Amino acid sequence: MSEPIPVHEAEQRIRASLPRFGTEHVAIDLAAGRVLRQTVVAERDQPPFDRVMMDGYAIRLGAGSRREFAVAGRQLAGMSGEALADPAQAMEVTTGAMLPLGAEAVVPVEQVSRDADRIRLHDDWHPAMRQFVHARGSDCREGDTLLEPGVRLRAPELAVLAANGVAEVEVARVPGVAIVATGDELVDVEQPVLDPGQIRRSNDRALAAALRARGFDDVTLARVPDDLAATTATLGQLLASRQVLVLSGGVSVGQRDLVPAALAALGVRQVLHRIAQRPGKPMWFGIGPDGQIVFALPGNPVSALVCAVRYLLPALEQALGRVMPAPERVVLDAPAITSPTLTCFVPVRVHHDPAGRALASPVPAPTSGDFSALPRTDGVVELAPSGAHAAAGTVATLHRW
Amino acid sequence: MSEPIPVHEAEQRIRASLPRFGTEHVAIDLAAGRVLRQTVVAERDQPPFDRVMMDGYAIRLGAGSRREFAVAGRQLAGMSGEALADPAQAMEVTTGAMLPLGAEAVVPVEQVSRDADRIRLHDDWHPAMRQFVHARGSDCREGDTLLEPGVRLRAPELAVLAANGVAEVEVARVPGVAIVATGDELVDVEQPVLDPGQIRRSNDRALAAALRARGFDDVTLARVPDDLAATTATLGQLLASRQVLVLSGGVSVGQRDLVPAALAALGVRQVLHRIAQRPGKPMWFGIGPDGQIVFALPGNPVSALVCAVRYLLPALEQALGRVMPAPERVVLDAPAITSPTLTCFVPVRVHHDPAGRALASPVPAPTSGDFSALPRTDGVVELAPSGAHAAAGTVATLHRW
Repeated sequence: MSEPIPVHEAEQRIRASLPRFGTEHVAIDLAAGRVLRQTVVAERDQPPFDRVMMDGYAIRLGAGSRREFAVAGRQLAGMSGEALADPAQAMEVTTGAMLPLGAEAVVPVEQVSRDADRIRLHDDWHPAMRQFVHARGSDCREGDTLLEPGVRLRAPELAVLAANGVAEVEVARVPGVAIVATGDELVDVEQPVLDPGQIRRSNDRALAAALRARGFDDVTLARVPDDLAATTATLGQLLASRQVLVLSGGVSVGQRDLVPAALAALGVRQVLHRIAQRPGKPMWFGIGPDGQIVFALPGNPVSALVCAVRYLLPALEQALGRVMPAPERVVLDAPAITSPTLTCFVPVRVHHDPAGRALASPVPAPTSGDFSALPRTDGVVELAPSGAHAAAGTVATLHRW
Repeated sequence: MSEPIPVHEAEQRIRASLPRFGTEHVAIDLAAGRVLRQTVVAERDQPPFDRVMMDGYAIRLGAGSRREFAVAGRQLAGMSGEALADPAQAMEVTTGAMLPLGAEAVVPVEQVSRDADRIRLHDDWHPAMRQFVHARGSDCREGDTLLEPGVRLRAPELAVLAANGVAEVEVARVPGVAIVATGDELVDVEQPVLDPGQIRRSNDRALAAALRARGFDDVTLARVPDDLAATTATLGQLLASRQVLVLSGGVSVGQRDLVPAALAALGVRQVLHRIAQRPGKPMWFGIGPDGQIVFALPGNPVSALVCAVRYLLPALEQALGRVMPAPERVVLDAPAITSPTLTCFVPVRVHHDPAGRALASPVPAPTSGDFSALPRTDGVVELAPSGAHAAAGTVATLHRW
């Protein structure tokens, strides 16, 4: 059995081994939440014309002292072609309209009195050159790069795609994932009666929820018994149809831990097994013969979730090609236990103090099997090996559930 | 036209007017991301038995000095019924197994030498009472409340549901939403050629992305022309089939702003129109005759998104019954412009300093029509009315896109 490796080495080995998921084109209405694989440039100047910013009247300033104007026509949003040549005239305009040719400012409708076809500016209103005119190209110029590959598409990105005519969007393909529960002791949620020695299967649902929250909608749940031949057969079938396998349980050192053996028989190359951390030490990671990503997480519920948020989910984001934001950092508001040799992951609840610091209150699980308290937490902080405890005030990286 | 009301009053009026969406039961495999509407109690003690925490051997401690044991049998995970009466015997156990009756501690497999059916503890290993035994009920007791209504179901909550036999979950029904774009100037993303006076429709896609990211998957896009009869007809049809209507544009004071008129004709009661804020001042909100939630957002892209994250999305979370976490607070790392009379929303990019503070760098949009820079931001900070600017170091609430 190999020595546990440090967390950062595990992370690097995983990073260096990962494939990249394919690319596909989807209609813009299906693009939300996906990871962009193309560059998006400005289709034209933005705004594409001098744009009116208020409902009101477009005028020329001329000598600047004129207070009364004849309303010569109107140019509403979506109309074009009007011009304003005479400084004694005004043109009615609405927010979003093209500024009529020759006009130099917009006076808000609230700042004029209108009588039939004449308007008069209120005495305390003094229009300024280009006032309430959003100049053509002031937002961006045609050809400017607006979005780069690796962005996860949220509302602002969708606005940019739509505004620049990108009806079909090049995004990362989201692979199918199989979650495989191991262990004969596991009883499904529907089964009504429990033998005292049995426990309910829960990791697979938790992992599926974490994956779905990150956009992995095509998730299959499977189960293998504690039997090498059956495990090998089922995993072989799943490897043929899914690009990502996530197993829970079966990677500890006991006699029935058949997962590494089954994966080896199927040609899945072991990249790491065992990490110097608590919880989650038995984690196994490998790459299948066709580039399949295989995570075998420990069976304890807290361990499985910690390994998922620390390794599995970041790995899948990398394979999607997402440019990851810097990690979220929080401040411990109470001491937390550390280990001289292991990186410790401690569940925390995050709140904000008046100074705007994100404080993390440790909610330690008594053991890696205790997950009843996890719903009250936001994620885990990562505490490097250290002889002493981590003092209150320690700044640590947060991994959210 | 009514006077703009302060942001906090707008928020209160909306809160006080909102209906609550219905309740439904869904299979656990469809529950991820939904808002819980039931209480979940522990089905039994957790763990349900004294659970073995390591692969190894269960022993009795007896006088405490015994170093050699005869392996009398084994109790693997999922098995039950074994007992250990003789202090000279050990029972082989695996992680997750029931502790054999009478056993008092578990010795990890790494800490023994085994020779046929005998084991000997390593010289430096000294077992302690209850060591590597996860005591029955130490996590929670049967009947303990584990989840309360109002929780959004993430991975830890799914683990708790599955572990406690909740196969069908009572959750908030997620209503259908219609997003309605107004304005004759709007051209859809697929149309190839642009008249200089036209702009592409983008708010609807951005709003749909924001809604989908919050679990509103049933989103319809619609469009109405600048015509009262047609607007009224379309909105009437949508009110009959959708519980939430989100309009963009058509709420400013110009002549073509027909939305409030059409909504009034359809019996939608106006709750507010115009908020003392920038951007987003023209926002309109009302409640339809059958309790439909109707938001009419300004047409400017930044305004529409600001109103969505500040009012629309929190309102929908409230109607789902979600217990909202405290707002996220950030520290400005540069001054930002404020207004003496308006609450200002300023786009920011968030990063973390070495002290664990969340710093927000303002990325001001030149106008509320400028959204090319928004993809580089995480959301907006909310700055109360103030004569001066907001200085660097100001702590403000962040609303994420």
